Amino acid sequence: MRTATRLFAPVSKAERFVPKLGSYPKGYVVGGIHCGVKKNKDALDLAMLHNVSGNPSVASAVFTTNKFKAAPVQISSKLIKEKNGQINSIIVNSGNANAVTGTQGLKDAQDMIRVTDAVLENTEDSTLVMSTGVIGQNLPIDNILQGIPRLGLSNLGASHDHWLACAQAICTTDTFPKLVSKQFEIKGKTYSMAGLAKGAGMICPNMATLLGFFATDAPVTQNALNQIVKYAVDRSFNSISVDGDMSTNDTIVAIANGAAGGDLIDASTETAEEFSILRAEVTDFAQQLAKLVVRDGEGATKFITIKVTDALSYREAKEVASTIANSSLFKTAMFGNDANWGRILCAVGYADVGSNSVNPQRTTVSFIPSDGSEPLPLLVNGEPEQVDEARASEILKEEDLEVQISLGTGGGQEATFWTCDLTHEYVTINADYRS
Amino acid sequence: MRTATRLFAPVSKAERFVPKLGSYPKGYVVGGIHCGVKKNKDALDLAMLHNVSGNPSVASAVFTTNKFKAAPVQISSKLIKEKNGQINSIIVNSGNANAVTGTQGLKDAQDMIRVTDAVLENTEDSTLVMSTGVIGQNLPIDNILQGIPRLGLSNLGASHDHWLACAQAICTTDTFPKLVSKQFEIKGKTYSMAGLAKGAGMICPNMATLLGFFATDAPVTQNALNQIVKYAVDRSFNSISVDGDMSTNDTIVAIANGAAGGDLIDASTETAEEFSILRAEVTDFAQQLAKLVVRDGEGATKFITIKVTDALSYREAKEVASTIANSSLFKTAMFGNDANWGRILCAVGYADVGSNSVNPQRTTVSFIPSDGSEPLPLLVNGEPEQVDEARASEILKEEDLEVQISLGTGGGQEATFWTCDLTHEYVTINADYRS
Repeated sequence: MRTATRLFAPVSKAERFVPKLGSYPKGYVVGGIHCGVKKNKDALDLAMLHNVSGNPSVASAVFTTNKFKAAPVQISSKLIKEKNGQINSIIVNSGNANAVTGTQGLKDAQDMIRVTDAVLENTEDSTLVMSTGVIGQNLPIDNILQGIPRLGLSNLGASHDHWLACAQAICTTDTFPKLVSKQFEIKGKTYSMAGLAKGAGMICPNMATLLGFFATDAPVTQNALNQIVKYAVDRSFNSISVDGDMSTNDTIVAIANGAAGGDLIDASTETAEEFSILRAEVTDFAQQLAKLVVRDGEGATKFITIKVTDALSYREAKEVASTIANSSLFKTAMFGNDANWGRILCAVGYADVGSNSVNPQRTTVSFIPSDGSEPLPLLVNGEPEQVDEARASEILKEEDLEVQISLGTGGGQEATFWTCDLTHEYVTINADYRS
Repeated sequence: MRTATRLFAPVSKAERFVPKLGSYPKGYVVGGIHCGVKKNKDALDLAMLHNVSGNPSVASAVFTTNKFKAAPVQISSKLIKEKNGQINSIIVNSGNANAVTGTQGLKDAQDMIRVTDAVLENTEDSTLVMSTGVIGQNLPIDNILQGIPRLGLSNLGASHDHWLACAQAICTTDTFPKLVSKQFEIKGKTYSMAGLAKGAGMICPNMATLLGFFATDAPVTQNALNQIVKYAVDRSFNSISVDGDMSTNDTIVAIANGAAGGDLIDASTETAEEFSILRAEVTDFAQQLAKLVVRDGEGATKFITIKVTDALSYREAKEVASTIANSSLFKTAMFGNDANWGRILCAVGYADVGSNSVNPQRTTVSFIPSDGSEPLPLLVNGEPEQVDEARASEILKEEDLEVQISLGTGGGQEATFWTCDLTHEYVTINADYRS
């Protein structure tokens, strides 16, 4: 195990993280084409998902809380609410975020929905729309509206290649498409789930945008799906950080069509066990997808898991983990393979939690090696350890690292957060020497 | 004016920002020596201030809110409270922060106070103690306790050189000592104020520590001084950011001995005008000192002023300004001379303020050139401007830049924040390639 990461390291991230095959949910067709938003004619820029199961599908979404919401966010969040989740399709363009584009932007987003619904013979307003890319410029809407029938009528399918094209078509500056699929069982019945995301690519005048959607053929009510998605996104896409910035376009959508059969899963007590299994499966799935976004963080050389334990609440555990994950001092120390527990402690100390939520005399900080070998304690019950620097350096040289912090409150609650290091490459990418 | 910054640029920051002379307050002696905390024998590491006016002096302090408080912070904050501000001296060591040092650390901090009081013939517990430097290691306390009489009995004075030595002795990785002095008038009476600070130097396993103290010969009550210092620190040391991290040792102290005479300034209505003038003078002074800390931010090539106007409250204006100042995307764009209003808008949008505290349709973003020429609007009432890129590039190439954001709420409140850019040099310094 020890040398596995090192052996793999020279291989590109695309080789390592893009699947060669998958097991996809029943009753969906997907695809991606180039329609002319991006200049490069080989770059896919229009993605679609369509529920063709014959069953009605339900969707649930989490949108950015940024006060500057892009037009597709404004339109999609309104639509999913009005339709009570009765969504049959998703249309996404990359290359232009349709953000800060005024009334024309809203009209363009509406038109993308209208044309998609017509082409796919949906009832009106059954499509969610997303956009990612440059902000402050209007969409080349004619290219998109001409692309939609071409994609919807001739380029959708259920194969691995269709899913991969769909994942590619939502990318902007991502270095690889992020696609995950899996099968899981609930009470002997097998279901599938597949999804894709785009990550933290920000080239001027873009902003970081996190987009993703995933689909399952499990049967679930709108109410149950809402609860599951909120829980899962809290613990996945809302538990990752590349640089702490949150975009105008961030959107995650889950859709379920029940095409694999089985009893409808509700949030009621009768299906409590099924609900609980599905929630765990969706959370695990969303974490897999979210972690790929961190893997592809701009300039990232390290994948860092931050686990905060023994907090008074999940919320506070997450707040502390998030504060560490966003500390530039911590992130540069990780880039430098520097076992600097002081910077971790410092971030714990200024996290926005209650005055009794951290017990300085009981706080413990350890590195957990990625090869499963013994943890390395750095601080135990508030007292610095004599750290074996050679061992610390060995652990830190691995691509993957886990930092564990026990807050010593006796509360027993925990949370996990994922982040990457802050590197020269990050500065180079984002300084974007235009001038 | 235009080329002034460029002409000065090749000159070192020390040449540009360290004064050659000053006007110092009456009734204080100060100094700095090498006592043996730092390895380099030429590096000053022990600083002292002593009120020798014969008047009792009052002090007011603001301490870090980090939950991991260094021993000197724990001791000094308790002492100043118990003594109701009756403080006669300050003792500071650099090179070791006396943080995460357990009961020995508390004893060492107490001993520094005890020996200083004895040497200076103060009544007991009349000294505040501060430390900055490495964390997790006990102080070389014998060296310090032997240094205190040498400093206190033979190396204090009121000259410019004494003040400069004092400023040098609190530095760690600062590239220049930060010393400011000024005279001001209240109702025809002339007073002086002088002070020093150390900034954001973080070399492993140090943490960023902001320390500073300033002294005036104006006559002011403890109660009035507390109010003035809180107001001034909010608008100066608490309105700057290098990387958003807050240390275990941050401490700012103000001391006043009334040695220049005049009527005692209280917070009562009788002296409301004097109070108001003094508060403005102290705020301006603290801002000068705080700005020097930003000038010396690690790896900084730019000094950026962020002014948020037309907010619903001062607190919200400051929260928005602080969010922009801490955005890695914004800071790298500034390093890259990139007029990326999208990143500014994005940070405004996720600032932790109320849902009606930003009006997206009325938000305006402009660059204010440092040479006093016409502002360059980037976004007006939520609509992107056609930006003259050549002009933007010209403005951004200057070392100093102001970004102004109007939130368009109609509230009319404003706040100013100072920060620097995020550079390759920052990553290099903080990655600290130990391994």
